[in-house]
Amino acid sequence: MASSSELSRVVVEEIIARALAEDLNGGDVTTEACVDPEAQAKATAVARSPLVVCGGTVFARVFAQIDPSVKCELVLPDGARAVSGATLWSLSGRARSLLMGERVALNLTQRMTGVATMTRAYVDALPKWTHARITDTRKTTPGLRALERYAVRVGGGHNHRNDLGSAVLIKDNHIAACGSVKEAIARARAHAPHTCKIECEVDTLDQLDEAIAAGADIVLLDNMSDETVTEAVIRTRKGGVLAEASGGITLARIAELAKAGVDAISIGALTHSAPAADIGLDFG
Amino acid sequence: MASSSELSRVVVEEIIARALAEDLNGGDVTTEACVDPEAQAKATAVARSPLVVCGGTVFARVFAQIDPSVKCELVLPDGARAVSGATLWSLSGRARSLLMGERVALNLTQRMTGVATMTRAYVDALPKWTHARITDTRKTTPGLRALERYAVRVGGGHNHRNDLGSAVLIKDNHIAACGSVKEAIARARAHAPHTCKIECEVDTLDQLDEAIAAGADIVLLDNMSDETVTEAVIRTRKGGVLAEASGGITLARIAELAKAGVDAISIGALTHSAPAADIGLDFG
Amino acid sequence: MASSSELSRVVVEEIIARALAEDLNGGDVTTEACVDPEAQAKATAVARSPLVVCGGTVFARVFAQIDPSVKCELVLPDGARAVSGATLWSLSGRARSLLMGERVALNLTQRMTGVATMTRAYVDALPKWTHARITDTRKTTPGLRALERYAVRVGGGHNHRNDLGSAVLIKDNHIAACGSVKEAIARARAHAPHTCKIECEVDTLDQLDEAIAAGADIVLLDNMSDETVTEAVIRTRKGGVLAEASGGITLARIAELAKAGVDAISIGALTHSAPAADIGLDFG
Amino acid sequence: MASSSELSRVVVEEIIARALAEDLNGGDVTTEACVDPEAQAKATAVARSPLVVCGGTVFARVFAQIDPSVKCELVLPDGARAVSGATLWSLSGRARSLLMGERVALNLTQRMTGVATMTRAYVDALPKWTHARITDTRKTTPGLRALERYAVRVGGGHNHRNDLGSAVLIKDNHIAACGSVKEAIARARAHAPHTCKIECEVDTLDQLDEAIAAGADIVLLDNMSDETVTEAVIRTRKGGVLAEASGGITLARIAELAKAGVDAISIGALTHSAPAADIGLDFG
Amino acid sequence: MASSSELSRVVVEEIIARALAEDLNGGDVTTEACVDPEAQAKATAVARSPLVVCGGTVFARVFAQIDPSVKCELVLPDGARAVSGATLWSLSGRARSLLMGERVALNLTQRMTGVATMTRAYVDALPKWTHARITDTRKTTPGLRALERYAVRVGGGHNHRNDLGSAVLIKDNHIAACGSVKEAIARARAHAPHTCKIECEVDTLDQLDEAIAAGADIVLLDNMSDETVTEAVIRTRKGGVLAEASGGITLARIAELAKAGVDAISIGALTHSAPAADIGLDFG
Amino acid sequence: MASSSELSRVVVEEIIARALAEDLNGGDVTTEACVDPEAQAKATAVARSPLVVCGGTVFARVFAQIDPSVKCELVLPDGARAVSGATLWSLSGRARSLLMGERVALNLTQRMTGVATMTRAYVDALPKWTHARITDTRKTTPGLRALERYAVRVGGGHNHRNDLGSAVLIKDNHIAACGSVKEAIARARAHAPHTCKIECEVDTLDQLDEAIAAGADIVLLDNMSDETVTEAVIRTRKGGVLAEASGGITLARIAELAKAGVDAISIGALTHSAPAADIGLDFG
Repeated sequence: MASSSELSRVVVEEIIARALAEDLNGGDVTTEACVDPEAQAKATAVARSPLVVCGGTVFARVFAQIDPSVKCELVLPDGARAVSGATLWSLSGRARSLLMGERVALNLTQRMTGVATMTRAYVDALPKWTHARITDTRKTTPGLRALERYAVRVGGGHNHRNDLGSAVLIKDNHIAACGSVKEAIARARAHAPHTCKIECEVDTLDQLDEAIAAGADIVLLDNMSDETVTEAVIRTRKGGVLAEASGGITLARIAELAKAGVDAISIGALTHSAPAADIGLDFG
Repeated sequence: MASSSELSRVVVEEIIARALAEDLNGGDVTTEACVDPEAQAKATAVARSPLVVCGGTVFARVFAQIDPSVKCELVLPDGARAVSGATLWSLSGRARSLLMGERVALNLTQRMTGVATMTRAYVDALPKWTHARITDTRKTTPGLRALERYAVRVGGGHNHRNDLGSAVLIKDNHIAACGSVKEAIARARAHAPHTCKIECEVDTLDQLDEAIAAGADIVLLDNMSDETVTEAVIRTRKGGVLAEASGGITLARIAELAKAGVDAISIGALTHSAPAADIGLDFG
Repeated sequence: MASSSELSRVVVEEIIARALAEDLNGGDVTTEACVDPEAQAKATAVARSPLVVCGGTVFARVFAQIDPSVKCELVLPDGARAVSGATLWSLSGRARSLLMGERVALNLTQRMTGVATMTRAYVDALPKWTHARITDTRKTTPGLRALERYAVRVGGGHNHRNDLGSAVLIKDNHIAACGSVKEAIARARAHAPHTCKIECEVDTLDQLDEAIAAGADIVLLDNMSDETVTEAVIRTRKGGVLAEASGGITLARIAELAKAGVDAISIGALTHSAPAADIGLDFG
Repeated sequence: MASSSELSRVVVEEIIARALAEDLNGGDVTTEACVDPEAQAKATAVARSPLVVCGGTVFARVFAQIDPSVKCELVLPDGARAVSGATLWSLSGRARSLLMGERVALNLTQRMTGVATMTRAYVDALPKWTHARITDTRKTTPGLRALERYAVRVGGGHNHRNDLGSAVLIKDNHIAACGSVKEAIARARAHAPHTCKIECEVDTLDQLDEAIAAGADIVLLDNMSDETVTEAVIRTRKGGVLAEASGGITLARIAELAKAGVDAISIGALTHSAPAADIGLDFG
Repeated sequence: MASSSELSRVVVEEIIARALAEDLNGGDVTTEACVDPEAQAKATAVARSPLVVCGGTVFARVFAQIDPSVKCELVLPDGARAVSGATLWSLSGRARSLLMGERVALNLTQRMTGVATMTRAYVDALPKWTHARITDTRKTTPGLRALERYAVRVGGGHNHRNDLGSAVLIKDNHIAACGSVKEAIARARAHAPHTCKIECEVDTLDQLDEAIAAGADIVLLDNMSDETVTEAVIRTRKGGVLAEASGGITLARIAELAKAGVDAISIGALTHSAPAADIGLDFG
Repeated sequence: MASSSELSRVVVEEIIARALAEDLNGGDVTTEACVDPEAQAKATAVARSPLVVCGGTVFARVFAQIDPSVKCELVLPDGARAVSGATLWSLSGRARSLLMGERVALNLTQRMTGVATMTRAYVDALPKWTHARITDTRKTTPGLRALERYAVRVGGGHNHRNDLGSAVLIKDNHIAACGSVKEAIARARAHAPHTCKIECEVDTLDQLDEAIAAGADIVLLDNMSDETVTEAVIRTRKGGVLAEASGGITLARIAELAKAGVDAISIGALTHSAPAADIGLDFG
């Protein structure tokens, strides 16, 4: 299970500082007017619909940056399934501090929880017996990649490569630049760190055979029908190559793709189109 | 019509630099291996579904930060409605530079275009004769608020207050802290810049009357039925107060709310849950 | 009364870090040479002339960033009137830490206190019975706006809009670009968030009438004589419009302007020309 | 004569970026509403009172950061004495860009020009025949030290040490920590870079003698009367030591201090209390 | 051959800006005093000993950040072997700009060239027929990793994983935490992105067998003698596993290790202990 | 003895944050997989060869930034001579936190300790009776200057000027620009802060005489033989000028240069070419 110790503190603190600056640089004119500086309050973050909890540490750190004296209890751990009405996290401290951080804390955690919740839906659609995994892509929100990759893991998914330097992924334009799949893979093998796997995107079974023959470690089966995927997996198995399906993935196809035997199903929508989870902050 | 000159260059450049650092700090191991440093290429950003174009300048600046010699033409201006297959923007320059910037450029502009497209749908649902406007909220993606507020305007919407220092918005917890709506508005009037309007969230018609009597400039009608909104608007009209509807807004309700006479309909989903627009980058 | 909880911690910490880097990047060669690392000291910040205290939290945080073990007591709260010789804040801890932070702490708080003290003088010049307020402008020290706006409030003043996105202020060049006051206000109303008030600068009574007729929320009476201001206020009252006087404001005119009935008097000098308050740090 | 090439570009660009972010993060709602994106304009920065010009490069770079196509001509060079009404700098380009940058550009250059103008007044008060120089101190505006030190040079003054690592300045607390002036100077000599001069603050003639005997390179004559300064200089001359007067310096005392023979007169007010110069931006 | 397009511009510009701030925040007091602002100069960077050129782009960008009008010609490309006395890069422009940037430009490029030169020595020690590669490690200079990894490639070497998120490298402490090599590899396989190779450090041949059996993709042969390495490689070949030698590597052992058949030899000293290359900047 | 209180906390925290971001932005995929989030561990940093300890505070702060609950004991103080096998610092806390920070902590402290150790060797080569000091130069690692200058002091050395604004150092190109040594020194005297010493680089005894006559405070004897240095020192003594030897300095020459009577010996290699000290982190 993903743990919040996997969120680099340095990265998280910087994301939060930037978000607070965006919202609070001119102060909070309403709260300053209406709330006594020393008034105390309690508040709880509550699920307004079923969701997979994600971002407790981030939630707590938003308020800690505003006011280190705010206390935050993480009632449900990241990864827990919360029913509508469940209390996720609770706060106590200066009312001003709670009100000033509310929006930023929710903006961050609603997104993280949204990603975890959508990921969980895809993971739950996998049959029990499969070894296939649901993965994210690099289609993350600029500036928030670390949070979103963590949320995918919290939702039971796995990560794809972190950035352009972490693994080789040869796409059609790289192949075009090299003249052939074979040449592209050879160049990648010669250049890339020996610690990098080499993945090659293929559109057809012919390209697939070429990639396997050239020694790809992983093939990305791009926008193929379930039938073609099934045939492709058979060929990768012979070559000892991992098969990743991507493109046009829907919840409805997950079981079928797992049955086809793919090793990974990568889904951009997990991070670029997950709706924000509905979490409210109730005072009192 | 919103113009890209409304995007503060300083803000945009920093967002892009951060996004590029996130993806390129370890280099692009695939492109370095496969593509000759001096090889040239052309590419076009193409709509894969109908959308409202947004982010041309951002798209261009991503590549400019990577390589100032890349040329970018903005074929369709921000705000244009593009059919599926339409070319939005075109690039020419070093193939390496185009490949290295592709993902960051699309991650940013798919989000901006997604927001503009969803906003446009809500704006188009307004009857022709109405003066009601569709607005965003502060429920924006942390770090990207400036881009998303711009996208809302590009989609024909309007912005709500930019941050906690730009206007007063009294919510239930502020009222609770003050003891009454009247006291909350009085304190806000006494404290806030005289350039700030004072908006007060109300849940009932009684609260509404109290807010109007206390001199609110705007009332936020929170989660009210169409019928209650209709009644509420009648009362605001007498008080010379603006009425904003929020909470539980769907496309289907827009026409009805406009008919009820509200001045603004604010929708968090425009920025927190708009799916990424489908834009592809075609080379060659 | 303004409270230091109104100073966004994130903003303050960044300002202090930048200031310390400016002074301490090469170390403190004198203190390193002369003072034993573990030697302890006490010091008190003392008013050398009458002043309105401002910046206690900032003072404390400067030393906390250098050395979290330094203890700081805020003897007089922000907003207190201190006589010459009064102790404002007291410190105890490593002598090195106190000496290294002295200059930065004083540079920041002498400025803040200077602004608060000048503001207080203008506020004290208002007659008791008036509702008029003294406000700042955007003529703040670049990088220190949040501190200076806070200092104005500590001195009993009010803030004007925080930045170019917080309210509309139509000046002569905007009017020229639109062709008329009426058109400028109409465009602003159509474009700006409905949460924004619309203020219009006017140089003559004719322009004033035009602005009132066009629906301005506030008029800025620019560089008008007391007599013209008096007449202008009469006209704004009829229109239910706020009147702000600005330009050529001196202490001597404050009472007269209040008598004329203006709602706000905005003074750039509060932030661009307030002399540093005289505060010394006495050791021992 | 100080030249703008002495302003480190990296430092200046960062100061400007921060200042623009402070004012423009929420856009310029007035200008966006009222001014056509492609409308062109001309504007000139004009002295509203006699002043010593300072900050032309900074002025130009503010607009360049907003919009690289804006053209800026520096009509009068830094250091020139401008009469009231003189044109300092002229701009042409998109009207929006000029309006958006106006306040930040003036906030920075009014301060720089204010510092240069006040410095020039002190420098002009020196007799022709003297070798004494007017210098600043470390009492600069946090975040703007580089600009203000440059402005002092533009006004004909000289800089004191840049930061705590650039030279040794032994004050009373350092002496107290060491037990004696002699020991303090000995420790400083032993520790500090051999490239550092050692300056010692003295309050009395006895301390002065001790400092000279101990080998100080410079003595800071703190808050001494003109008579005492005269006597002190005689003693420093014998010791081959530089004499710097500081504390309680007024314009009226400058000639007398020069006559006393001091080498430097350092004045905190040059940077902490210079009023902003009156510069307006005239359009059209 | 490594190309400078592999250096992410965003990363490079930030490193340079930080380095310039470190050296130029207080200006260049010598150059300002001695050199006329408009005086022109030419200078050439010259090898003072044989070296492998590295950092031409960085050299040019240092001066470009100081003064965009400086012209820089890269006489020898990165990767070229320069004899003592060879001209690497030449500059022309304002003398002030050349003098101000000299030290920072040399500090960066002497390090890069030092790394490239040492790497080249190791690469040259490999026999012609070998497929073994020389690689770096994560033992890079904090803040300069991107530059140093590039320099290793310029010297003919290869990179190891970029950061802790790019590949799995199981060390003794990870094994201890898991109880066994087998369990550690199983957990890594289950958790890590499918795009990550799994490398396992082994100290003995027994551990090696365990790692191969558990499905490691790479084994790191830590501090083994040439004989043990030879035996280890035989076993990895049977398992289809890559063998990397590390620890106690000297130039003298390279040929022997290649003969043993290892796939990679990783050397921390390339980046943590390469002496700066001797490059001088000759004016005139 | 140099103390860690001389390391500006603000500067150190920023260097560490940057270094951690470089290594941990993509998480630590190995540790996340293999180590239980709550598992505890102990580890000790151990000298693998004789060295002069440096960087204890930095070591501790790396782990504190990752996880404030990690405890760190500095067993040996900075400046201590450690034998091979000696424990320098010990850690206890979450195993994940120790593993994630290991590399960054060692990368920073191995460099600092390497610099301190090399400096100590040069300092130890000085005869007991000499007043000569070993100093660094500005040839430091970009971004790490503060750490390296501290390490030189920890090793018993002294610092040279911190940056281009801290002291005047006239080199051949400055002389060429001025026409003569005399003119260069005169201009420097006229321009530079009176707190700056003026150092002049000389290549010949004739230049030396010219520099002394012109009033240089220090002469830098560049690349002179021991004999020429001896003669040069005699001449500086007459002029009351400090003599610094630089260029071509080796350990073997130190005693001879001290005997010649120089005041300072500056050595670029201390910071640009010190090999990393061998420090290991032993768990358990």
